[in-house]
Amino acid sequence: MKFARFISGGRFLTGQLQRGMLIDHAGEAHDPSQVTFRLPVDPPKVIALALNFNDHAGELGLTQPTEPALFWKPNTTLLPHRGSVIYPRGAEFMHYEVELAVIVGRDARRVKAKDAMDYVGGYTIGNDLVVRDYVTNTFRPPLRGKGWDTFGPLGPYYVTADEVSDPHDLTLRAFVNGELRQEGSTRDMIFSIPELIEHISRFMTLQKDDVILTGTPKGISHVHPGDVMRLEVQGLEALENDVVMETEDAEPIKGREDKEPVWDGR
Amino acid sequence: MKFARFISGGRFLTGQLQRGMLIDHAGEAHDPSQVTFRLPVDPPKVIALALNFNDHAGELGLTQPTEPALFWKPNTTLLPHRGSVIYPRGAEFMHYEVELAVIVGRDARRVKAKDAMDYVGGYTIGNDLVVRDYVTNTFRPPLRGKGWDTFGPLGPYYVTADEVSDPHDLTLRAFVNGELRQEGSTRDMIFSIPELIEHISRFMTLQKDDVILTGTPKGISHVHPGDVMRLEVQGLEALENDVVMETEDAEPIKGREDKEPVWDGR
Repeated sequence: MKFARFISGGRFLTGQLQRGMLIDHAGEAHDPSQVTFRLPVDPPKVIALALNFNDHAGELGLTQPTEPALFWKPNTTLLPHRGSVIYPRGAEFMHYEVELAVIVGRDARRVKAKDAMDYVGGYTIGNDLVVRDYVTNTFRPPLRGKGWDTFGPLGPYYVTADEVSDPHDLTLRAFVNGELRQEGSTRDMIFSIPELIEHISRFMTLQKDDVILTGTPKGISHVHPGDVMRLEVQGLEALENDVVMETEDAEPIKGREDKEPVWDGR
Repeated sequence: MKFARFISGGRFLTGQLQRGMLIDHAGEAHDPSQVTFRLPVDPPKVIALALNFNDHAGELGLTQPTEPALFWKPNTTLLPHRGSVIYPRGAEFMHYEVELAVIVGRDARRVKAKDAMDYVGGYTIGNDLVVRDYVTNTFRPPLRGKGWDTFGPLGPYYVTADEVSDPHDLTLRAFVNGELRQEGSTRDMIFSIPELIEHISRFMTLQKDDVILTGTPKGISHVHPGDVMRLEVQGLEALENDVVMETEDAEPIKGREDKEPVWDGR
């Protein structure tokens, strides 16, 4: 089943997608193109993966990590389907990233990979936006690169786990202004969903409705104010967001973060 | 004023500290040594600082960052005063870190340093625990180093901003089993509280009750199961937590994360 949370006629509703229409709890049908989408879920926390696709690591000239490279998307990044992403004034390089977003179905701690899929509630589409200007360390991207308000579009639907027969065989595509820019498959994930759940839940509790952004394939490119991003994950419909310039009173950003020393001692 | 949230006689209460006693809303007095403390605040998010004290950077043989080095403490790390910190089975190096925790008083976005103190609601004490085994990059410590459940003790009191005349002149001390191990002053912060609020709020919204852990001075040392940590920040009382070994069914951790390449291209 595919569920959306939306606003229609001034009412906050939840509906199930059936034959292209959103059917609310009273049986009333709403045209998805006419409603205001809300986030499909309110995650307690959002954990993202850096370099979880072979081809994307290659594209950046990097070796693959041998362990999942985790980072944080603050909840203040989250943006619904059709919301506008704010382009930071002064930024040089802003990239979209299409990703399969796993929604945790129940609290998970020290879960083994073989049992991990029982903890998946469903899926949605995530756009892990970044100001690449600040990213000197791709294994551990800085908060100021990934953490801007509106840099985490998510949606449009909560697609229940039973609806996705194999989450490791889904095509991912990103279009900018209708042009195909990024294409890949979840087959090429370095760490699978069960491996990620085992790794993370070894040290922290994954809570119901937490979101794991599982990484992006090759094909990143710049976006600019005025662009419209359309991100597709097979079976999950499409997540659309446009890019708008930050207001003029915002001080232009500049520069990059420090080169980060690696500490060999203990 | 100093407020605590606590459980006494099976009731969930809030009280103000007056002459060593917690006075609840009905005027009833509770002995702080006899109550169960809860977290002083429920932060939407917790942002921490790496290497924000000159002497601590020196202790690790590192140069200072030229910009605030931010990282995330998940809410699942948070632990009240007198709660037990879990020592991960197999860890070699676990360190406490005494820190001044700034509690955001109201939503802040694009706030200038000169106005930033108006957005501070109050202060408490934070313990930014870490399994140092995993930290190869001290500017951007990995989630698996800092993000374990129970690795973020916070409390005991919400001390309102008016009660702290100069937050940049407070003595910080950490005792382990009664022995002074760490001592410093918030005078030695590299980035001041207003500078941190300006930096962070340039790209993301700081929400009411968010917590900023402002960094730790020199004096880190190992702790082990059975140890009791007592962390003092001048004027904020003391945060105490013991360390207990993880249960035997937990698989021992081992190894370290990848060395992280620095990406020079764009």
